[in-house]
Amino acid sequence: MNKVPSSQPHSDVRMKGFSSRKTVEVALRWVDEHSLPLTEETVDLRDGSGRVLSQAVSSRIDVPGFDRAMMDGFAVQSNDTLGATPYNPLPLQIVGEVFPGQPFEGTIERGQAVRIMTGAPIPAGADAVLPAEKTQSSGETVLAQGEVPTQKHLGRRGEDIQAESLVLHQGRKLRPQDLGVLSSIGVGQIQVYRRPRVRVLITGNELVPSGTPPTPHKIADANGPMLTALVERDGGHVINNGIIPDHEDSILTAMQDDVDVVLVSGGSSVGLEDHAPRLLAEHGELAIHGIAMRPSSPSGMGLMDQRKLFLLPGNPVSCLCAYDFFAGRAIRQLGGRPAEWPYRRIRLPLQRKLVSQIGRVDYARVALEEGKVEPVAISGASLLSSTTRADGFVIISADSEGYPPGHEIEVFLYDDEV
Amino acid sequence: MNKVPSSQPHSDVRMKGFSSRKTVEVALRWVDEHSLPLTEETVDLRDGSGRVLSQAVSSRIDVPGFDRAMMDGFAVQSNDTLGATPYNPLPLQIVGEVFPGQPFEGTIERGQAVRIMTGAPIPAGADAVLPAEKTQSSGETVLAQGEVPTQKHLGRRGEDIQAESLVLHQGRKLRPQDLGVLSSIGVGQIQVYRRPRVRVLITGNELVPSGTPPTPHKIADANGPMLTALVERDGGHVINNGIIPDHEDSILTAMQDDVDVVLVSGGSSVGLEDHAPRLLAEHGELAIHGIAMRPSSPSGMGLMDQRKLFLLPGNPVSCLCAYDFFAGRAIRQLGGRPAEWPYRRIRLPLQRKLVSQIGRVDYARVALEEGKVEPVAISGASLLSSTTRADGFVIISADSEGYPPGHEIEVFLYDDEV
Repeated sequence: MNKVPSSQPHSDVRMKGFSSRKTVEVALRWVDEHSLPLTEETVDLRDGSGRVLSQAVSSRIDVPGFDRAMMDGFAVQSNDTLGATPYNPLPLQIVGEVFPGQPFEGTIERGQAVRIMTGAPIPAGADAVLPAEKTQSSGETVLAQGEVPTQKHLGRRGEDIQAESLVLHQGRKLRPQDLGVLSSIGVGQIQVYRRPRVRVLITGNELVPSGTPPTPHKIADANGPMLTALVERDGGHVINNGIIPDHEDSILTAMQDDVDVVLVSGGSSVGLEDHAPRLLAEHGELAIHGIAMRPSSPSGMGLMDQRKLFLLPGNPVSCLCAYDFFAGRAIRQLGGRPAEWPYRRIRLPLQRKLVSQIGRVDYARVALEEGKVEPVAISGASLLSSTTRADGFVIISADSEGYPPGHEIEVFLYDDEV
Repeated sequence: MNKVPSSQPHSDVRMKGFSSRKTVEVALRWVDEHSLPLTEETVDLRDGSGRVLSQAVSSRIDVPGFDRAMMDGFAVQSNDTLGATPYNPLPLQIVGEVFPGQPFEGTIERGQAVRIMTGAPIPAGADAVLPAEKTQSSGETVLAQGEVPTQKHLGRRGEDIQAESLVLHQGRKLRPQDLGVLSSIGVGQIQVYRRPRVRVLITGNELVPSGTPPTPHKIADANGPMLTALVERDGGHVINNGIIPDHEDSILTAMQDDVDVVLVSGGSSVGLEDHAPRLLAEHGELAIHGIAMRPSSPSGMGLMDQRKLFLLPGNPVSCLCAYDFFAGRAIRQLGGRPAEWPYRRIRLPLQRKLVSQIGRVDYARVALEEGKVEPVAISGASLLSSTTRADGFVIISADSEGYPPGHEIEVFLYDDEV
């Protein structure tokens, strides 16, 4: 929250706003320059879903490691089936059977067949699988009722993955089937980028902790649980979270936590009681403070030692917007993910005019109604419930005055479901 | 894996395929009829991200619970500023100051002002906030240099959320900002649908466990880690997972685990050693077995007591496809989520012809190349690496023979990132 000075001697040097604001573009550039992926760590494959590979993975082995049957039937020498038809069945001697995982020990000679099932290793000497549908068997003899060409119905060694081939590239965010493929090449542990450790630091004497009913003149903290969920969504790991008394000492101590990223909610503006920007400037580098956007104009960012600090406005909508523009982008990239928003996009026409101001980027909540984009009422622009009533948001760039009704615009959808 | 009979007396009653197959549509209908949301449970708000509300939430309180300042400045009686300009400044007596969370105890009279900052409660007697920018203060006097109309720069009690109003509807999958809003109304715990408990049961004597290098004639289990990640993606909770010896007793015991859903991978077809369908038919209800689709034709589903069982082919691509069509849909709905795939969709033209067969649904992996849809080589159709090389998949309905080059088709993207 912005703070006005108390009536102390210095009260009339109160700042009345930011002397200048940086563009969103400049702020994004700062984020990207300071968000190289963190170090790597080793995790078990079973914990790998959604993690990002810090090293390419090649296979040491062929998958499968042996030729195998792709049909239930009989492993044969294909020459033995030449001329076979239902009217000219050719007899073969059944010399054994082979199950998946249990190889046939012998070698197939001319005139012989081995009963085989899908997935089982092809016996030595055989060069094809005669499907069960083309046979009739009785006792120790099978009648081939059709021909099978050489190599037919065989899965060749290495046909899925060849030894020494690249399986997944560095930077891959692992999908469920990627875990399957990694498992199939015998990988039990993987090298991934470390998840950013994030301190969520909530300030504001008007706040009571989340989960507590608000008392008279106080409000319950909304930003703590919201930021925690956003950080987890973006691959970060919140290691601490809570309301900090609005004193310089306690804020500075929390800012110096052993983490990769600190998110400070509240006290991000230019009032004398906005401690965070001053503390960051004194004990680190306040790289950017004040951004030409709405909401979230009183946002900042900088470095304290290796930690990235993001100063987010206390107003929950501004906090959400500033997180999404800057902090989330940093957290994603620190963990090796792409910078882009994890929101689905859709292009739809505007239901009504959307007005903006040249010189600032606008983040406008919208609802989708019958395939059209309806801006959520301006009166609710600073209220968090506007972001739960909305289906998503649109961005109006700094060089635009807005758009007329019918203009097709890109909507970012809050919901990650289809 | 399909199994052929061994050379026992019954070996010639081997079944040579499904006598008939159900349509995908019939199977989906069965899934939807048996996937009503589970019971609810209470969780802490901080664990609520991505969970689904089993009850609508209304607010018991107004948010904010008091009128508050929306600007830094002075709480005043607006009438006192009538006629004020920089050339005609009107003096007001500063009788106090008010910080967020710390109310002003007195009442503002005519000619008085209270220094106030954004978020602080409006003192009794005041009806507007005169922004700091329109004032000059010195000691105990502030000069109003502009007018302020009544109610200006006030946030009214209940403007974000009104007491008794609906905040979030039943079935809402909670977004980060929803947690913020719930927190702001004093909610610390929420009622959500229980997450489905899922047993992942891997069969196949040719398999070695995930994380183990394959040995000669064996392959490493790919389906276990893949299915586990898919279940977690869809909101389920895997409570057990592993390779089961390919015996009737051990499979039946695992099928009877105390869970909501059992996924059986392997042995799902009609061979004599495909135990799972027979066990389900004998000890429960095998509702559907054999589906007109490719891959995943040898899939099944049914009930054993209250448990939903899905019989998935051992081939990893078929397993992924059958999971995504049926099991995932059930798990999502059991947990209160929408039935639809959690894949982003995009419409793009085909680079080349895509052929299918009338009478079956095809699931074809595709790559996106320069804005066009390129089918992944057919030769790799049964290989899991085809799903990691692919960017997504397309569905060709049962009534279609496929599409010509240039035809615009909907692609479901495997990657959940933009």
